[in-house]
Amino acid sequence: MSSIGFVTPQTIQFDQPLILQSGATISDYHLMIETYGTLNADKSNAVLICHALNASHHVAGAYADDPKNIGWWDNMIGPGKSVDTNRFFVIGINNLGSCFGSTGPMHNNAQTDKPYGADFPVVTVEDWVQAQARVADHLGIQQFAAVMGGSLGGMQALAWSMLFPDRLRHCVVIASTAKLSAQNIAFNDVARQAILTDPDFYGGDFYAHKVVPRRGLRVARMIGHITYLSNDDMAEKFGRDLRTGEYQFGFGIDFEIESYLRYQADKFADYFDANTYLLITKALDYFDPARAFDGDLSKALAKTKAKFLLASFTTDWRFSPQCSRDIVQALVSNQRTVSYAEIDAPHGHDAFLLDDARYLNLIAAYFANIDQELA
Amino acid sequence: MSSIGFVTPQTIQFDQPLILQSGATISDYHLMIETYGTLNADKSNAVLICHALNASHHVAGAYADDPKNIGWWDNMIGPGKSVDTNRFFVIGINNLGSCFGSTGPMHNNAQTDKPYGADFPVVTVEDWVQAQARVADHLGIQQFAAVMGGSLGGMQALAWSMLFPDRLRHCVVIASTAKLSAQNIAFNDVARQAILTDPDFYGGDFYAHKVVPRRGLRVARMIGHITYLSNDDMAEKFGRDLRTGEYQFGFGIDFEIESYLRYQADKFADYFDANTYLLITKALDYFDPARAFDGDLSKALAKTKAKFLLASFTTDWRFSPQCSRDIVQALVSNQRTVSYAEIDAPHGHDAFLLDDARYLNLIAAYFANIDQELA
Repeated sequence: MSSIGFVTPQTIQFDQPLILQSGATISDYHLMIETYGTLNADKSNAVLICHALNASHHVAGAYADDPKNIGWWDNMIGPGKSVDTNRFFVIGINNLGSCFGSTGPMHNNAQTDKPYGADFPVVTVEDWVQAQARVADHLGIQQFAAVMGGSLGGMQALAWSMLFPDRLRHCVVIASTAKLSAQNIAFNDVARQAILTDPDFYGGDFYAHKVVPRRGLRVARMIGHITYLSNDDMAEKFGRDLRTGEYQFGFGIDFEIESYLRYQADKFADYFDANTYLLITKALDYFDPARAFDGDLSKALAKTKAKFLLASFTTDWRFSPQCSRDIVQALVSNQRTVSYAEIDAPHGHDAFLLDDARYLNLIAAYFANIDQELA
Repeated sequence: MSSIGFVTPQTIQFDQPLILQSGATISDYHLMIETYGTLNADKSNAVLICHALNASHHVAGAYADDPKNIGWWDNMIGPGKSVDTNRFFVIGINNLGSCFGSTGPMHNNAQTDKPYGADFPVVTVEDWVQAQARVADHLGIQQFAAVMGGSLGGMQALAWSMLFPDRLRHCVVIASTAKLSAQNIAFNDVARQAILTDPDFYGGDFYAHKVVPRRGLRVARMIGHITYLSNDDMAEKFGRDLRTGEYQFGFGIDFEIESYLRYQADKFADYFDANTYLLITKALDYFDPARAFDGDLSKALAKTKAKFLLASFTTDWRFSPQCSRDIVQALVSNQRTVSYAEIDAPHGHDAFLLDDARYLNLIAAYFANIDQELA
């Protein structure tokens, strides 16, 4: 199906300071958004899309001056697609601290007239949601038809349902979790250590040195990438295939999987910001809405009012189906309306970004129901 | 039960060059061993213990001048233990290229009068077994009662059964695999990349610069450590426990799991050699005896004559029970005598080193049977 075509990002400037969960304040910031489709007269058809670690406000379509730069969820969102932009007004937003246009560590700190670097405040999922709510205010949207995201994006959708129960009718949480496990945190911390100890990191102030901590970013990306793919999928795609058919007896590339990971790592180091990587992994680690309720997720979700769709993928070992089941159970214990699908897909955590008919049809069916409510 | 007490390592010098699988030759090398118990008159009670990544010839007992330095399998091997040194003559050996005493990259290359560094030849599991066979020759042992190892050590035991079918009566392969998966290789390659790109690695010649590529070693160890523990075990031991009870909103230590991994990483960087890490992970990646038989493991094992014991651990996701089952199936298809135990243990891959009554009793029972054969 055709994409939405060329799209144009917008910058929204905010002058009122945002007080963060850490107690720090960020003032004078801007957020990048894209919108697709048309907001209806009663502003009831808006859908907010929250992004994961390595994504942005560029959710669908392409840019006229960069036609190959397709939005990261273009297979999901567009005219006639699962989230149909002929029916819904869809908003993609780039979060604070990211490196795709919204105010982040590479931007100037007005107070020092230098890039924030490591001084950029640690932001949480809840902070992002507060900032997103201001975007909704700016657009005059009192209540979203749905807030939706996968992985870290799903955490934001879940946080919306708790922080602003009246501002969303549906909450769509895909391949996500209500809290990271010790193993998840461990992988994030190794990645952070790789960046923090890279001599080119300069304590976060590498911009002034005109270098990039590429070594750290490469290692961080390789670790992340392994956790996004399933063991079986990697076996299927790469197995023990050798680049040249023979062992090289050295430390260059022997196996295709090495070639693939190093290529992805190099690409990532070309465009991703090291401070952003630290910030976003911390936001992941810190998300734990049950924490304020002695670990009781049911209590954390007690004030939610939205209807929920959760989806997980059988081979996702980063945020396994059990993570979604735990959220479903906590919602059910609160008598919330919950749909849950566990999709048998081979592609691990990455499945939430990929084409899978059952998955795309599930989302399509759910949004068709939301559309019915509008009509 | 008491340990074997104080032990003394021995150095064996070899003057005949060893031709390696790569085609390279290593001449003038030495291997470190320790022995426990007494070789019987007909030299039929010898048991060879092969070590995994981070271990050595120091399998049991302690050193008089370093009494806290207990052998890595002291819980398994000693008087009255599962492998009873009152009955068996047990040999621990440090492999070529390791950093615990046998000739390795930190030693002088006679041809250049400098440390080998990155010039140390890539060695394979099969190369190690060839070198171990020379140790057996040196000790006058024609046939081992058993060759035994866990993880990478299990690969060596398995290689013994194929390379020297007449030289072992029993082959004990614990928590091992006949080949690494793409995911296993991927983790190894990230670790290698962390070391290779550490500015203090100097292409492997860091000895001359009087530095150690600590950053790379730390990251490598953290990655490795995560794969040794089970997700459940990590959740049980660390969960989301915070060091101070509060989020720090910075990039220092928040979670206990971070503290633990960084501490282990620092310790590892203090003693482990970076070139050895590269070599040993390559040996792991390259092990694939079925490769010469078009991937048919049954054919690879067709010439074996030993009896086999395999054991795996339910929560081991590095070398899962399925890896052991594949070996068992290939052996059974060759009508070999095979015992196999899948042990329900929470500790992941590390379980092969830990105290678990069912596991230690299993090994004890198997070796009691071997002892019966001797009598």
